[in-house]
Order: sequence, then C-alpha cells, then structure tokens
Amino acid sequence: MADPYAPVAADAPSSQVPALRWDEPPEGPVLVLLDQTRLPAEEVELVCTDVPALVGAIRTLAVRGAPLLGIAGAYGVALAAVRGFDVEDAAQTLAHARPTAVNLAYGVRRALAAYRSAMAGGGDLGAAAGAALAEARLLHRQDAESSARMASAGLALLDELLPGGNHRILTHCNTGALVSGGEGTAFAVALAAHRAGRLQRLWVDETRPLLQGARLTAYEAARNGMAYTLLTDSAAGSLFAAGEVDAVLIGADRIAADGSVANKVGSYPLAVLARYHHVPFVVVAPTTTIDPDTQDGASIEVEQRAAQEVTEFAVPPAAGAEAGAGVPVAPLGTQAYNPAFDVTPPELVTALVTEDGALSPVTGSGIADLCARSRQATMG
Amino acid sequence: MADPYAPVAADAPSSQVPALRWDEPPEGPVLVLLDQTRLPAEEVELVCTDVPALVGAIRTLAVRGAPLLGIAGAYGVALAAVRGFDVEDAAQTLAHARPTAVNLAYGVRRALAAYRSAMAGGGDLGAAAGAALAEARLLHRQDAESSARMASAGLALLDELLPGGNHRILTHCNTGALVSGGEGTAFAVALAAHRAGRLQRLWVDETRPLLQGARLTAYEAARNGMAYTLLTDSAAGSLFAAGEVDAVLIGADRIAADGSVANKVGSYPLAVLARYHHVPFVVVAPTTTIDPDTQDGASIEVEQRAAQEVTEFAVPPAAGAEAGAGVPVAPLGTQAYNPAFDVTPPELVTALVTEDGALSPVTGSGIADLCARSRQATMG
Repeated sequence: MADPYAPVAADAPSSQVPALRWDEPPEGPVLVLLDQTRLPAEEVELVCTDVPALVGAIRTLAVRGAPLLGIAGAYGVALAAVRGFDVEDAAQTLAHARPTAVNLAYGVRRALAAYRSAMAGGGDLGAAAGAALAEARLLHRQDAESSARMASAGLALLDELLPGGNHRILTHCNTGALVSGGEGTAFAVALAAHRAGRLQRLWVDETRPLLQGARLTAYEAARNGMAYTLLTDSAAGSLFAAGEVDAVLIGADRIAADGSVANKVGSYPLAVLARYHHVPFVVVAPTTTIDPDTQDGASIEVEQRAAQEVTEFAVPPAAGAEAGAGVPVAPLGTQAYNPAFDVTPPELVTALVTEDGALSPVTGSGIADLCARSRQATMG
Repeated sequence: MADPYAPVAADAPSSQVPALRWDEPPEGPVLVLLDQTRLPAEEVELVCTDVPALVGAIRTLAVRGAPLLGIAGAYGVALAAVRGFDVEDAAQTLAHARPTAVNLAYGVRRALAAYRSAMAGGGDLGAAAGAALAEARLLHRQDAESSARMASAGLALLDELLPGGNHRILTHCNTGALVSGGEGTAFAVALAAHRAGRLQRLWVDETRPLLQGARLTAYEAARNGMAYTLLTDSAAGSLFAAGEVDAVLIGADRIAADGSVANKVGSYPLAVLARYHHVPFVVVAPTTTIDPDTQDGASIEVEQRAAQEVTEFAVPPAAGAEAGAGVPVAPLGTQAYNPAFDVTPPELVTALVTEDGALSPVTGSGIADLCARSRQATMG
C-alpha cells in the first residue's frame, strides 16, 4: 500500500527544555525536572529540593525512562549530600522508588560510591558532596555519549538488515531525549535514520495506559520534523499483516544475564508479532541496563501499578480539570491487571544495540562478554 | 500463580434496559436504543423517529455489534415504511451506514424483501410496513435463539478443549446482551460457563480506542456477577506468557468464504499470541455473519475511523463536560492510523461456534457446508 500520510517538514525545532537539569539558584542547589505527566499540553518544570520530592516525581512518572532514572538517581544522592541530609538513607529510598529499571539503582550506586570514597579518603562533607555531584554529572555526560553511539550503531544495523532505506519503523513507549542525557535509545536510532533521509515513517504505539507514545514520542517526533503516525497498541497487528512494518525498535528497563528484556508492557506482544511476520525486533539500550545479577526473565521483578491507571482516564491539567482527577471509564469497583512492564525472551530479540555496537543473536555468553568489555572500558 | 482477585457475588441483577426495542407511543412508532456511548456512567435511551437518526446512532456507535446492527437495520426499514418514508432509499442508506459488519446489510435485506414481497402481492403500504416490521421482529427473535444455541455449543466446546473447568477466558471488545437480541456471542459463552460454575475468570481487554471492553463488557460482567479483571489490550501478552489464559473467545463482524474473520481491531494480535502459546482461539458468531460473497480476508473492507478517536480522549458526559468534547492527548496535528477492525486468517482460528455448532478446523469447505445447512434451515 502506498504511504497515505503527508510528510512533515524536517526543519521543526528540537525541544528546548531538557528532561532534567541541575541548578544552583541563591536558595540552594536543586534538581529541575520537565514534568512529563503534563506533556504535550504544557512544558512545566518541577523543582526538587529534596529526595522525597524526587521520589514522588519518580513514582508519578514525572521523570521516567530507564537511562534518565539512572541520572536522576545519581543527582538525587548528590542533592541529599549537598543539602546535608542523610545520604545513605536517601540512596536507599531512591534505589527502591521503582523496582524494574535497573539503571535507577545503578545511578544511585555510582554517586554513593563516589561520596563514600571521598569520605573514606578523609574529605569533609562538602568535598564528598562535590564528588557525588561530579559523578552524577559524569554519568549524565556518559549517557549522552552512549546515546550518540547507540544511534550510530543502530543506524548501521538497520542499513544492514534493511538495505535500500525507506525504513518504516514501529516503536513503543517513549525512548527519546525525554529518557536520556542525550537523544535517547530506540528513538535516537529512528532520529538518526530520519536525519540520514532513510526513515519513511515512524509508527508510534500510543502505549496504554499512560500514553507515553501518544503524549511523549509523538511530541518528540513532531519537534524533530519526523514523518510519524500514531496508532492504538493493538492496531499494530494489522500493520504487520499488511507488510507495513520493516523493523521494531524498543528500549529496555532491565536486561537479565540470559538476555531477557523487561520493557514497557506491550513490548512482548510486538516481539511475538514480529517473529510471526519475520520482521526484525531490535532492542536499543545502554550496557548500564544489563543486570548480570538477574539470572533470567522470570527473576525480573515487574512493577504492578494502580488499577486506576486503567479504570480511569487521567485528565491532563490543560483540560481545565484538577491535576490528577480521573474520569472513570469502567464500572466502579472494576479490578485491573496493570503491570508496567513485560518480559521478552532473548530468542525473540533479533539484536541488542548498545553503545558498544550490536549483539546478534542475543545469548547469555554474548551478554557476559558485553558486560566484561563495558566494565573494562569503565575502569580503563 | 494463584488467582489474586476476590470473586464477585453471583447474584447481581442483569441489565434491565434492552439494547434496542420497538415502541409505539401515541406520537407514532419509534425505535428506541440504549445509547452505548454513555455507558457505564449513564443508562440513557435514544429515540429514533426516522432513518437519518438511526444512521447517526449507528455511525457514532450508540448502537453497535454485528448481530444487533442487523436487527437495527431491519427495524430501520420497518420504521421508514410505517412512517411513510421512501423505503428503498432508507434501505440503501442503512445498509451502507458502516461497511464491515455484514449483518447490517443482511437485516436490511430481509426486512426489505418482506416489504417488497407484500407490495408485489398486492398489499397496501400499511400491510407492507406490517410485513417489514414482522420480519424485523422475527430476526430479533431468531437472533436471541441463535445466541442461546451458540452459548450452549460454545460451552460444550470449552468443556471438550479444557476438561476440568476453571476456565480463564480472555475476551476482546463487547459481545454480550448489548450486541444481540439475546445474551450475545462470545460473551454468552463465558456467561454460560459462569452459570455452570466453570468460569474462573474473564479477562477483559479494554479495547482501544473506544474502550468497549472497559465500558461495556465490564458493565455486563459486573451485572452478571462474573469474576472479571480489566486489562489494557497489550497487557494480554504477559498473561499468555504466564500461562494465565486458557482460551480466547471473540465475536466477528464478517466471516469471508475462506473462513477469514474480521473483528474489532486487536483480535488478530490475540490470535497470533494464542497460536504462539498453544491456546485455543475461538470465534463465536451467528451464521448471518458469514458472507459467502466475500471471497477471502483481503476482500473484506475494513472501516477506517477518525484520527480523533486516538488523538483525543472523549470525555463521557458524566464527567460534567459537554458530550463529545475531546481532551487532546497527542500533539495537535498528529495523524493516526485507526482501523476499526482487523482480519484473522482461518489457520489461526481453532474453532468457529455458530448456532449450528462448532466448526473445527475452519476451512472454506466447512464454511460452505455451514452456509448450505443454514440456508436450508431458514427455508425449511
């Protein structure tokens, strides 16, 4: 079928508001977050002066996305340190604010290690806080670099899998600049294809229940002038059947030692559809998403979220209603099954793209090699 | 995993408001519809005094569901006739109000044939209108009977496929009393299993974009005291992966001569998931849903609906907003791919349950036999 959708001008400006920034106004250091629950209607910043505020923002998904959660966690430790709160306690709370994305605990751990090491080296509290902040900034920068390297490795992989360009890529949830210190994971690959003139269309799954695709990926695609089309998650089936999907690109929240991938709920059905239709299913994630301590998919803890996310529609503040007010869509008392993630086994993943290149097929030994190389690089 | 959801009392009352009824108040005959767009918040009836009003109700999905559309189409022809409008013209408009459900055109054709035959037999307009109305009432009654026979055939099939009871059934969209002269198609089978004490849980897909599962199936399940749990459409994947689904039961809007099944968008991904997990995928539909003139799945016209159904959330009137007002969820100008249906090929359908029993496997010759038998029965 011919592409019935008009292309979008490629010169729209990119987002100016960063997903997360450290700021030091006269009142004291703060972590400033772009409140993602209010996008695309409003670009509102949330100012966190302490860790409880940041934990609240993490739980309501004002800040979200695996790599960004890692960066937020690291800055959160720094915030506790510079503001003189109990750093060990703050780190503990932050690391457990959400259970599935391993990057959150990783970011917390790195900043905490820098803090402890400065203290152990005889530094005062100020110096230790400075060390934690420096580590958070380093992680932030490294994530931006990883993002650029994933984009380039991902584009090379697409060109190899799908020679001739004109890629029609399906993506799920949001994996762009809103989840990263750079341009993201899966979305960054699609953006690189767009810039190289090789993206014909980005199919954007709306991503129920919280509509990260409709609200956030569509927002990022529009701002980057990409040709994109939104669809309900289950409309993807007929796109596959019609041969309209050349590849699926998704991110990851945790990758187990066997290569199992936990990602936003709805990823696994796409993996099954992709396999049934012989379409490549590609996971794009930094090596910090790999958790060698989680043995396999069954060992990944999947966060179960409130039924209200499914039984009610959360009216955005722009609609004039009170923020957080939900309009019931199901009968009162309806129970809901609402996992935030699902797990895709490695045999359904065509390739894993990290900042170190593409791994294909995805196997336990391949994952182990990747971890060893990335650990060496970090130490080197 | 143990069933973590509390059972619902089995003695809740059934819905008292029929989905559709013919009424003859002093002002003249009318077709009265339960406005399904306002459920579950409000039970409001829509009174149609002419065919344009009925066509409007069909297009906005105030009345919907393949079998019920057939009944509504037949009553629509009768309404035009008793009110003295141009019957041929009304029939033409009604038959094309929505393209995919073949039952709509079938119901229109039956009432029109009765009308024409009375006219040809020398009857006056009043007698011909009476004949059209009698045919609509006959179709209404036959659909209720079909529903009861499908429920019993479907339950027998479940018992054969899944000996031991405790069925955990996944369903999509709405296929109960709201789509039928009786208790529906797929839902009627689940209800029969519930009444027989053999339904452990009904998993209800919310069914984006119009949430027929969350709004209508949950409403019917609650009223019948069934143990049900709502989920986003793409959360079904992890239920399959966890072995929590014993069978999928869906309805149909059109079945082609080769056995391809057009049904609510999202059915096809469930069929692929069911196949991948070796779970029976059962289609429940009256033989009136079979269209021997549509050769195969590719020949089925799939209705494409407005982008706004995906890019905006239609706030129900109960929320205090104006009816039909939409809250934007995606950036302005977002394009959407919004097919109302998708098509499942016969090789993914474990069985087709009609009022004539279960057909398995589903093949072109099996479908042809079924049509021949059902034509004979109608003539006999």
